[in-house]
Amino acid sequence: MRVIGSSEENLLKRIIRKVLTLKKTGVTGGIGDDCAIFRQRGAAEDLLFTTDLLLEDVHFRRETHSAQDIGYKALARGLSDVAAMGGDPRFCLLSLAVPRWADRAWVDRFYNGFLRLARKVAIPLAGGDLARTDRLACDVTVCGAVPRGQSLLRSGARVGDAIYVSGLLGGSKLGLDCKKGRAWKRHLRPEPRLELGRFLRKKLRATAAMDLSDGLSLDLHRLCAASGVSAEILASQLFPGATFPGATLDQALHGGEDYELLFTVPAKTAVPGDFKNLPLTRIGTVTRGRAGRALLDGAPLAPLGFDHFRNTP
Amino acid sequence: MRVIGSSEENLLKRIIRKVLTLKKTGVTGGIGDDCAIFRQRGAAEDLLFTTDLLLEDVHFRRETHSAQDIGYKALARGLSDVAAMGGDPRFCLLSLAVPRWADRAWVDRFYNGFLRLARKVAIPLAGGDLARTDRLACDVTVCGAVPRGQSLLRSGARVGDAIYVSGLLGGSKLGLDCKKGRAWKRHLRPEPRLELGRFLRKKLRATAAMDLSDGLSLDLHRLCAASGVSAEILASQLFPGATFPGATLDQALHGGEDYELLFTVPAKTAVPGDFKNLPLTRIGTVTRGRAGRALLDGAPLAPLGFDHFRNTP
Repeated sequence: MRVIGSSEENLLKRIIRKVLTLKKTGVTGGIGDDCAIFRQRGAAEDLLFTTDLLLEDVHFRRETHSAQDIGYKALARGLSDVAAMGGDPRFCLLSLAVPRWADRAWVDRFYNGFLRLARKVAIPLAGGDLARTDRLACDVTVCGAVPRGQSLLRSGARVGDAIYVSGLLGGSKLGLDCKKGRAWKRHLRPEPRLELGRFLRKKLRATAAMDLSDGLSLDLHRLCAASGVSAEILASQLFPGATFPGATLDQALHGGEDYELLFTVPAKTAVPGDFKNLPLTRIGTVTRGRAGRALLDGAPLAPLGFDHFRNTP
Repeated sequence: MRVIGSSEENLLKRIIRKVLTLKKTGVTGGIGDDCAIFRQRGAAEDLLFTTDLLLEDVHFRRETHSAQDIGYKALARGLSDVAAMGGDPRFCLLSLAVPRWADRAWVDRFYNGFLRLARKVAIPLAGGDLARTDRLACDVTVCGAVPRGQSLLRSGARVGDAIYVSGLLGGSKLGLDCKKGRAWKRHLRPEPRLELGRFLRKKLRATAAMDLSDGLSLDLHRLCAASGVSAEILASQLFPGATFPGATLDQALHGGEDYELLFTVPAKTAVPGDFKNLPLTRIGTVTRGRAGRALLDGAPLAPLGFDHFRNTP
């Protein structure tokens, strides 16, 4: 789910003004975080909901992406949102507009990619919709669960907190640019950080978290905006230590689609150097200042990550 | 949610074979009914989930459909699925690929149509996704709730049950064909039968129900297939008594998009002639026979309603 940031933000603000009050409806969080949060009376867990579009010629091209890879990624994006909230995935729904160019074998391969990942994280495909159209469009809703009131939010970062990222950034954009090797695989098959998300919630007690879907510069801006704080990060921490081999600092900062986790913890928290071989790197500190402002080595960091309503060709 | 029927059915069967077992996941019903059913431990209610695509040039044309009408219908279809299960809607999610031809005012009007209906049924828009593309594509997920174990299913019809429809059928297709008057309004603004759905569940104790999204002939086939029974209906009951003024028997049988409810009750149940001025008409009887077979005045009724995978131009 991705609905805040610069020009998307403007559209969203207009929508939010019109949206019904969420009080008394069971929806305790919503538009603007990675998932909406729904609380059922009597239930020990809160439910998380996220929905993500995957569109031909916007999110992928059929010339370069295999059916399996597209199916995989359609689900991986929603799982990454659930991971960012510290949740366990429970089930998914898939709406698929099958393009006229896709034959039966293609559709089967798409479902194979999708369902193999569903099986890996042990969730059923509980329903969906089908239609025929010219270009593939799919929308995946993922439901997850967390113990009541314990979701990791974007809005919890506090002044003085340490800022971390998981994994190596920029690999997805490098892969998209070169279309080969490990970087291309990184682009095609991002791994939802579900186990790490639960670790952040249960063990590290992270104050805020989100997934890096649109690039660190834009997503850090969003986390800081939601938390009402600023951030200072250091290029020396990010590059080359937390950057994918071969990727540039630019790709790590603005590339997007890495689906790693960005999170904050109180300064005193002991964060291990890795979580099951996935590096956890401190890149900076939460500071007092204008909500959403980020500095890189002391200079303003423009939120140049991917925004559908600005990056339109 | 619409995923069973003739050629769609074949695609679906292939998917179902691949889908994980739903046991122990909390998903107690799923692909093939109007909504998936999810049960949370400790909760007094089951949750219903449905997701519906609305695509430009498939489900509507921008030349003839206003932005408000498209927004309205995007939500109405999911609400109709919740109504068919006897549920109360709780919240919705909206994924919207905004076409390049749509300016800010158009998008505002789309949201106005959507949110006015959300407000009317008292549910929040809890989240969603946004992207830019060439043609409008939207996907709406609606969550509803019913008391535990009391969802109205397609699969509950028993031999000897009486078959009913609500309202007047064929109006939506008539409207689509003539694009004027009350019939066109009927096409543009179908009313989700939420109150009727709850009445069927609580008071009439209907044995099976579904909404008429793809036309009586196809949907009756689906209900009978899910229940493992046949059906016999009478044209004299349907036409003109349960048919929209000016619509033909053909439009009433195969037209689709009426979003009325099709339901069955035990033969002895006293069904009123109307529910708050909405006619309830007995059109036939559930019979022993091949699962999914329907007879009209004794002759086989072909399931000619709308099927995306057969009706492709």
